[in-house]
Amino acid sequence: MNVNVFHNLSYGVYIVSTLDGERPTGCVANSIMQITASPATLAVSINHDNYTNSCMKRNGTFAVSILSEESDPGLIGTFGFQSGKNTDKFAAVDHVMKDGLPVVSDACGYLTCRIIDTMETSTHTVFLAEIMDGDLLLNVPAMTYSYYHKVVKGKSPKNAPTYIPEEQETAAKVSYVCSVCGYVYDGEVPFEELPDSYVCPICKQPKSKFIKKD
Amino acid sequence: MNVNVFHNLSYGVYIVSTLDGERPTGCVANSIMQITASPATLAVSINHDNYTNSCMKRNGTFAVSILSEESDPGLIGTFGFQSGKNTDKFAAVDHVMKDGLPVVSDACGYLTCRIIDTMETSTHTVFLAEIMDGDLLLNVPAMTYSYYHKVVKGKSPKNAPTYIPEEQETAAKVSYVCSVCGYVYDGEVPFEELPDSYVCPICKQPKSKFIKKD
Repeated sequence: MNVNVFHNLSYGVYIVSTLDGERPTGCVANSIMQITASPATLAVSINHDNYTNSCMKRNGTFAVSILSEESDPGLIGTFGFQSGKNTDKFAAVDHVMKDGLPVVSDACGYLTCRIIDTMETSTHTVFLAEIMDGDLLLNVPAMTYSYYHKVVKGKSPKNAPTYIPEEQETAAKVSYVCSVCGYVYDGEVPFEELPDSYVCPICKQPKSKFIKKD
Repeated sequence: MNVNVFHNLSYGVYIVSTLDGERPTGCVANSIMQITASPATLAVSINHDNYTNSCMKRNGTFAVSILSEESDPGLIGTFGFQSGKNTDKFAAVDHVMKDGLPVVSDACGYLTCRIIDTMETSTHTVFLAEIMDGDLLLNVPAMTYSYYHKVVKGKSPKNAPTYIPEEQETAAKVSYVCSVCGYVYDGEVPFEELPDSYVCPICKQPKSKFIKKD
C-alpha cells in the first residue's frame, strides 16, 4: 500500500468541544462527515486516547467549530498538541456558549450535536450524532486539511486517523521541524538567523525545540 | 438552524464501486473519512436507495476512486444521477481491476476495502472497512466538494447526505439550471444563444432539460 494516497482524501479542520463537568474542553478533529440530511446527522472519529472522547461520552453532547483559512493556527497547537486532562484549553481562547457548549469565536461556523450512537474500533470511537443547531460565523472559506498541510505547513497530531509516521512519507529536503507538533519552518529568513524569541506558530514552543532534519 | 453551515464541512468527491455479481457498478460519494491509521480503516456513508449499497453488502468489498480536479465531470453524471440497477455505469468508463474491484482510470488515487462493520441510520448505511490496498494514480490535486460546487458548478445527488433542497439555500440570481442534475449554467455565451446540440456537462442531458430560475 502507498500511504501517500491518504493525502488525497479531503477533510476540514475542526475543534470538537464538550464539557468536562462544567469546564469546557476539546480537541482537533479532521474526520467529520454528514451522514443523513433529514434529520441532519454527522459522524466524527475521536481517538480513545483523547481526553475529549470520554468527556463526550459522559456529557452526551458536543459542538463542532469549523476552522477557516484565517483562523489562528495556534488553535491547532492549543487543542491538538496537549491534553485537556491537565490543561484548561479554553482558558485563553475566545469562545461563545451555544446550547451550553463552547464554540471557538474564531471559526467560520459551528454545529451543536447530540450523540445517538457509537461504533468502537481498535483506536477510535466513531460518534453518530444528531445536529441540534448550527450557523455561519464568518464569511471566510473553511480550512481544509490540505490547506493546513500545504499552506500552514502543519502536521497531524499522533492520535489523528490522518497521522502518517514521518519515515513513511516521501523524503523531504533539509528543514527545521518543531519536535513538539511537527510544524516545518518555511519562512523567508534562514532558520539559523531567527531571533531566540521565535516560537512555533502552531504550538508556541520556543526555537530551541526545533530540530534539523535531512 | 442555518443549513448553509453544511457547506463549510469539507469533503472530497469519490466513486465508490463494487460488483453486482460479476458486473462492476458504483455511485458517487462525498462522505468518506479515515477512521484508524493502523490498521488503516475508513468509513463511508451510502444511501439505502443507492443500488450500490445492497451490492456492497452482498459483495463484502468495495473500491474508492478518488476524483481529481481534472477528472471528467461527466463521471459524476454517470455515477451520481442514474441507477446501477438499470444501467451498466462502467460500460463506457475506462477502468482497471484492483483486488477484483473496478477502479476509475481517470482518478488521482484509489483504495480497495473490506467491510468489517456497519451502522444503520434512517436513510444511510455507514460502512466501516479495512483498507486492503491503495495507490496514487495521477499527480493532480484531489477534487474537493467545494471545488465541484464552485468551479464545476455541480450539485449533490438527492441521495447524498450533503444534499440541501434548493429553497433552503441562499437565493440566487436568474440562471439556467439542469432539471436532471441541478448543474447551473455559467458559461460566457448567454444560455439562449447556445446551439441546440448543447448538453449538460455533468449528466449529458440536452439543452431542453434546462429550466430558467429566478
